[in-house]
Amino acid sequence: MAGLAPDTPEHIFTVETVPLKYGHGALRELGHDIKALNARRVALFTDRHLADSEHVAIAREAIRGAGLDVVVYDAVAVEPTDASFRDAAAFAVDGNFDGFVSVGGGSVMDTCKAANLYATWPDDFLAYVNAPMGQGKPVPGPLKPHLACPTTCGTGSEMTAAAIFDFVSENVKTGISHRALKPTRAVVDPTTTYTLPVGVVCSTGLDVLTHAIESWTARDFRTRDYPADPGSRPPYQGSNPWSDIGSMKAIELGGRYLERAYADPSDHEARDWLMFASTLAGMAFGNAGVHIPHAMSYAVAGQNHRFVATGYETEKPMVPHGISVVVNAPAAFRFTASANPERHLEAARGLGADVRNLGPEHAGEALADRLAAIMRNTGCPNGIGDLGYTEADVPSLVKGAYQQKRLLVQAPRAPDEADLAAIFRDALRYW
Amino acid sequence: MAGLAPDTPEHIFTVETVPLKYGHGALRELGHDIKALNARRVALFTDRHLADSEHVAIAREAIRGAGLDVVVYDAVAVEPTDASFRDAAAFAVDGNFDGFVSVGGGSVMDTCKAANLYATWPDDFLAYVNAPMGQGKPVPGPLKPHLACPTTCGTGSEMTAAAIFDFVSENVKTGISHRALKPTRAVVDPTTTYTLPVGVVCSTGLDVLTHAIESWTARDFRTRDYPADPGSRPPYQGSNPWSDIGSMKAIELGGRYLERAYADPSDHEARDWLMFASTLAGMAFGNAGVHIPHAMSYAVAGQNHRFVATGYETEKPMVPHGISVVVNAPAAFRFTASANPERHLEAARGLGADVRNLGPEHAGEALADRLAAIMRNTGCPNGIGDLGYTEADVPSLVKGAYQQKRLLVQAPRAPDEADLAAIFRDALRYW
Ligand SMILES: NC(=O)c1ccc[n+]([C@@H]2O[C@H](COP(=O)([O-])OP(=O)(O)OC[C@H]3O[C@@H](n4cnc5c(N)ncnc54)[C@H](O)[C@@H]3O)[C@@H](O)[C@H]2O)c1
Ligand SMILES: NC(=O)c1ccc[n+]([C@@H]2O[C@H](COP(=O)([O-])OP(=O)(O)OC[C@H]3O[C@@H](n4cnc5c(N)ncnc54)[C@H](O)[C@@H]3O)[C@@H](O)[C@H]2O)c1
Ligand SMILES: [Fe+2]
Ligand SMILES: [Fe+2]
Repeated sequence: MAGLAPDTPEHIFTVETVPLKYGHGALRELGHDIKALNARRVALFTDRHLADSEHVAIAREAIRGAGLDVVVYDAVAVEPTDASFRDAAAFAVDGNFDGFVSVGGGSVMDTCKAANLYATWPDDFLAYVNAPMGQGKPVPGPLKPHLACPTTCGTGSEMTAAAIFDFVSENVKTGISHRALKPTRAVVDPTTTYTLPVGVVCSTGLDVLTHAIESWTARDFRTRDYPADPGSRPPYQGSNPWSDIGSMKAIELGGRYLERAYADPSDHEARDWLMFASTLAGMAFGNAGVHIPHAMSYAVAGQNHRFVATGYETEKPMVPHGISVVVNAPAAFRFTASANPERHLEAARGLGADVRNLGPEHAGEALADRLAAIMRNTGCPNGIGDLGYTEADVPSLVKGAYQQKRLLVQAPRAPDEADLAAIFRDALRYW
Repeated sequence: MAGLAPDTPEHIFTVETVPLKYGHGALRELGHDIKALNARRVALFTDRHLADSEHVAIAREAIRGAGLDVVVYDAVAVEPTDASFRDAAAFAVDGNFDGFVSVGGGSVMDTCKAANLYATWPDDFLAYVNAPMGQGKPVPGPLKPHLACPTTCGTGSEMTAAAIFDFVSENVKTGISHRALKPTRAVVDPTTTYTLPVGVVCSTGLDVLTHAIESWTARDFRTRDYPADPGSRPPYQGSNPWSDIGSMKAIELGGRYLERAYADPSDHEARDWLMFASTLAGMAFGNAGVHIPHAMSYAVAGQNHRFVATGYETEKPMVPHGISVVVNAPAAFRFTASANPERHLEAARGLGADVRNLGPEHAGEALADRLAAIMRNTGCPNGIGDLGYTEADVPSLVKGAYQQKRLLVQAPRAPDEADLAAIFRDALRYW
């Protein structure tokens, strides 16, 4: 590990984690937890599939059991869109709630963040959306209390300041990012994942791996400019000694448990740890940031509305987020490895590869190979080719990905458009 | 790593960390940070040695530079007493402050926590003191903003809910423990440690190691009773997957850097990492708790007002906290090892011992040996014998330590009085 000496532009990092409750039965304590935040009229966000689940029933009963009003909103779109965000915001504005609880995957938690935002600080929809799609206006103040309860393993959205949606008319995914969007508390009950179809374990578990590896390999926080004033550090600071700990632990847990969780749906131990890894990775990337694979995913998911993934057969055709990211990842890490071979080798080792005899020149390949093996072992599509993309799509994918400057600058080696084209081509097929 | 399955009394843990700013020059941003908490009239706590230091000058200038009033209190006692806590409280009551900043070691940060408490929620001194010494009354509500800036490596007090003092008339150390005492933010500038005498690096660095190893080996959170209501979980929950990560990382960093920091005072890289380890260990033990070595230290430090430690020659005679703990540690871990040999071996490995050929029956010895070697290499006294204690003192030491039930129950194997006597005897001398 390098020293922390200050002959670098920046030499300070900050850590602000969302308070966490983790464990079997955590959902049963939701009533106590939301009441402690002085809520009396609670909006409970979920999606249509989960609306009838035991998980939502438990959450609802817990809130009602604490003597609070609870109104369920279950019209969240899986992979939300601008239209579905607006609909949720209208519900929240009308309902005059003083507390929010989200029980679901990233789609549900993100929608709840957005609804809370527009209900607390009403404005035009595009006002808060990240530039260049929207105006990127800072959120004026704190939102209403929000307890985020993930049920996938998972986006880590319970720990982050982002809410992502598909901007359908623009053919690109984008989002809203501001500290104020961080949930008040995260309530993580790993037993919720026991009902996840293996296809969703694959897409969300691979999302965890990319969060962890991207934040682990993100540019060093010390390479950023020292901020003009101490309040203006970006929320995504680059890799730092604190985020490194969570990133590496999540890489190791993911490397150990994802294939197990996929292979045997009754392996609850594997799902428990994967859920913990998901939250850890959320802490880490919510602090350090992600880079090329996520930037590319916004184009991959935004330009494809035909694909039907295993486990998502009942949804509208779309590329699930985790898949839209991981299909780029082996190719992206082959590209970034030269900027920091040690970290890429360490990531490969963390995922379970034997790297003892490998030199720095093999770092990218070692990481790409182990990641591709995990993808194969968990039923993941074989590159963007399996999603239906061909060489001919590369220019428009590059155009979409290159708009994600906010993410691309976090890479240890920032790609130009030609680099992105080469990475997309490399990502067409892995085995 | 074991699964997290719920066939145990408790199966939930929580994580609430103090927001952190870490890095070279962090003290220079104090003005911005305390102003952001709406303070206008700030009490700056420090001790007499530090009052003239560059660190305090930087902090003061930063606060004044932000246009705020700042009043320095430098009468903190190194190893505070009931009398020094009361004096600081009187200062805070009179000064009518709306913000607190502490720049110093655990003595300063703890005194500032107590002063903030009595100024915000005035009461009899013993009201908030832990039972059985005091009444253990819960703090009625939040305290005023407090930025804690450690300058030793260190107590981790910037992350914890405790304020410790020497109850002189009772010959025992005790404290005040309540969530509300957690600082609002921790501002950790590792350059402050560059002026630490090596004697203080030894005592505070060894404190870090014991925090990390004790929270790593603390009883599993799942062995506690499920709480009567979700709000009544104790602040010290026992070891859990989250505290484990910080504990082990702090063990590894301490094992790598403490001897270096001691051997070469100009090794700034070692001090930077030790300071980071100190904060990590504070996060971990502030969440999981410490056990036997700390419980014993309260007697060791409370019954000895003759010892003069290297680096503390200008203080009143006393046993510095870190030393009062670590002199018990090898003996205590020999006692606890049988309850969880794997973890004791892992801790020895983390500290740098070669444990590849050791079976579980050698776990206690392996950890004790490596720890004793680090003590020897950093100029630490050789057991409680070196502090002036003999066999004849064991009964009164046992009596003092046995009062610390709150800590003893956190051990993986809870000692009775005979066990404590055996551990104290074993701690008389190590090499
Ligand atoms: N905010 C962030 O930081 C962040 C990070 C990554 C991804 N995301 C976003 O999150 C969204 C994806 O979220 P996701 O991957 O968690 O999946 P999801 O929320 O889209 O859910 C996937 C599917 O699983 C079902 N499901 C969820 N929990 C279940 C359970 N316990 N049992 C059975 N079925 C269950 C859902 O009904 C849905 O059909 C995307 O929009 C993505 O862009 C956000
Ligand atoms: N609240 C908690 O969680 C917690 C945990 C562990 C210990 N403690 C308490 O903390 C106290 C001990 O604190 P400590 O070990 O940090 O030491 P300390 O605050 O007592 O300071 C030790 C000595 O170092 C000097 N010093 C401090 N910083 C310096 C610097 N940067 N340069 C030069 N000299 C410096 C001080 O003036 C003093 O002489 C004890 O009372 C102990 O019980 C509290
Ligand atoms: Fe993601
Ligand atoms: Fe301590």
